[in-house]
Amino acid sequence: MNETPILLTETAEGICQLILNRPERRNALSLSLLQTLQAELDRIGTTPSIRVVVISANGPAFCAGHDLGEMVERPSEEYRELFEVCSNVMQMVRRIPQPVIAKVQGMATAAGCQLVAACDLAVATNESRFATPGVKIGLFCTTPMVPLVRAVPAKVAMEMLLTGQPLSAQRAYEVGLINRVVESSELDATVDLFCQSIIASSPMTVRVGKEAFYRQLSLSEPQAYNDAVDVMTDNVMKADAQEGMQAFLEKRPPQWTDQ
Amino acid sequence: MNETPILLTETAEGICQLILNRPERRNALSLSLLQTLQAELDRIGTTPSIRVVVISANGPAFCAGHDLGEMVERPSEEYRELFEVCSNVMQMVRRIPQPVIAKVQGMATAAGCQLVAACDLAVATNESRFATPGVKIGLFCTTPMVPLVRAVPAKVAMEMLLTGQPLSAQRAYEVGLINRVVESSELDATVDLFCQSIIASSPMTVRVGKEAFYRQLSLSEPQAYNDAVDVMTDNVMKADAQEGMQAFLEKRPPQWTDQ
Amino acid sequence: MNETPILLTETAEGICQLILNRPERRNALSLSLLQTLQAELDRIGTTPSIRVVVISANGPAFCAGHDLGEMVERPSEEYRELFEVCSNVMQMVRRIPQPVIAKVQGMATAAGCQLVAACDLAVATNESRFATPGVKIGLFCTTPMVPLVRAVPAKVAMEMLLTGQPLSAQRAYEVGLINRVVESSELDATVDLFCQSIIASSPMTVRVGKEAFYRQLSLSEPQAYNDAVDVMTDNVMKADAQEGMQAFLEKRPPQWTDQ
Repeated sequence: MNETPILLTETAEGICQLILNRPERRNALSLSLLQTLQAELDRIGTTPSIRVVVISANGPAFCAGHDLGEMVERPSEEYRELFEVCSNVMQMVRRIPQPVIAKVQGMATAAGCQLVAACDLAVATNESRFATPGVKIGLFCTTPMVPLVRAVPAKVAMEMLLTGQPLSAQRAYEVGLINRVVESSELDATVDLFCQSIIASSPMTVRVGKEAFYRQLSLSEPQAYNDAVDVMTDNVMKADAQEGMQAFLEKRPPQWTDQ
Repeated sequence: MNETPILLTETAEGICQLILNRPERRNALSLSLLQTLQAELDRIGTTPSIRVVVISANGPAFCAGHDLGEMVERPSEEYRELFEVCSNVMQMVRRIPQPVIAKVQGMATAAGCQLVAACDLAVATNESRFATPGVKIGLFCTTPMVPLVRAVPAKVAMEMLLTGQPLSAQRAYEVGLINRVVESSELDATVDLFCQSIIASSPMTVRVGKEAFYRQLSLSEPQAYNDAVDVMTDNVMKADAQEGMQAFLEKRPPQWTDQ
Repeated sequence: MNETPILLTETAEGICQLILNRPERRNALSLSLLQTLQAELDRIGTTPSIRVVVISANGPAFCAGHDLGEMVERPSEEYRELFEVCSNVMQMVRRIPQPVIAKVQGMATAAGCQLVAACDLAVATNESRFATPGVKIGLFCTTPMVPLVRAVPAKVAMEMLLTGQPLSAQRAYEVGLINRVVESSELDATVDLFCQSIIASSPMTVRVGKEAFYRQLSLSEPQAYNDAVDVMTDNVMKADAQEGMQAFLEKRPPQWTDQ
């Protein structure tokens, strides 16, 4: 008898789907699920044939955050391990060369909301909601706060963190937490458009750009410009950039070699 | 004969109301009013029975900023003292452990607009407006700029600072300067909902979270994660977190001990 | 026979209009055009009679970014020079004492979009669009990203950078990339209102404020306050601040001396 896997992975045509599969637990991020995500992201990061990653979820909820069932009365070092693995997963989403898209079909709570904030792009249905309600159970959403407050205006983040009340999908779109809010029936197609757009580009270019994006975020503008000029000078000498510009001038589709 | 106090303080059921009370001066922040605010915030910060602070104002204006009547032809050291006390008040709003909510019923100008930006949360009526018009009188709103540009997009702040023109309450909401824009008749109830939501949580949790929020704001994301993992590991071992998680699992209300 | 200049400069009544004038090349920023812009900004920065700068464009497009025609198969040092001159122009927009307004009547692409992001203020018509499509030709818009991600929420910038798809003028307004979106027939009048508002203020005050704005952007809030208190103390002692406050109290128009 096979146990149902807590994370489903499906890779086809350059798209790797990671599907949270604990619907009966509202896809809570148990240590085991976080470790599985960590291993998968590690593998994806070194698999060049994967061009884009989509994180979605089975069931009515997207992700309820940590699994409270395994969080009471543990020793300090177990908690630390849990939060470190979790923070590492969130940062790996940004460190792997492929863009990662959150595909949200329901409630995203605490570390689940953090996962949406940590992804490069996010698409959600009208019914989706976003909350950091740890304050209500005595455990402030301090790690979810890290990418949240870097994604939305400070007062919006503070309201979510202090009250635990959810943000609607529409407001999440307005303030920049998600890139699109759509009808449920449009969710697959909207995410796929993003995927196809990314796949059509040179992998080298996407890789160089994503890495530069996060590296310069906390620099001052003059420092960021110094870094960016180096990256551009390097990028433009690459075969794919020369091919891309040439193809554009000749009004023909480019042929990427990932060089 | 009693002089009318320039700041009214009313504390009941964990809520401390600080009411600017110079309506005939549009609640201008004289040095004396700033010093009174400073003393009050100092006292509040060490009064654990106060769980949340609301800053509101009497009269049609919320706050007109510095009191120009006392600002002409002073020696340099008096100006410095004024700006230092003012900046200290604004930073104390963030440093005290309790959340501070701006309750705005009219025009918030210069240091008055800064006060709204500096608060953790802000609620305003439809008629409220927000402006940093110092540029028009030769004195650029440089200190108001500090929290303003950290609350709203850079170009929105720059427009306010360069033109002095007011932002409508609706636009202030859209860009994140305030959390809610409501009818005048809804102002009290909306602020009270925020207060009750905060009071329902563990004081320890709110304190830990507010402090961590501002501490990590200017860190790079990896540094912020390091800090946040420490805070979470500490927070989760506290009695109130253990109680909160246990109560949640047992579907009963938590009993906080502030430990 | 005169060659048509690639940049038109018109100065009247304190307003310097810089008009990109390569409509047949969609106002692409050739090295020559960038060097001309650099020289003009340099001159403007030391011309106190110029109070505000407006960058606009002739033809249907605002600016298509770099001129791909001169970007294929060049040696590394030529690319580096191009990107350094370009980054320098963008940073000069911020370093010169006068506010710079982008007046956008069409598509702003790559370094053209960067120019809009780099300006202090921006006004655009309904038909204008904003894109960083370098990823499609193998050359990620890394330098345009620098001011872009400091102007709009991170996920909005990431979407533009990863997909190359344009942002509508309306969405650009909502997220803070531009200050106004208007009908074409209103573009001139809207920009002029901003210009007149700036010209009505003391040049000293505008200069002090613009410089302080960008200097404190990447500081932590406490550091920014330290800087701002120094600036305010200095500013308030100036003749124009004393005059401005006095005039306000006396309900008369101020007389600026730029001191």
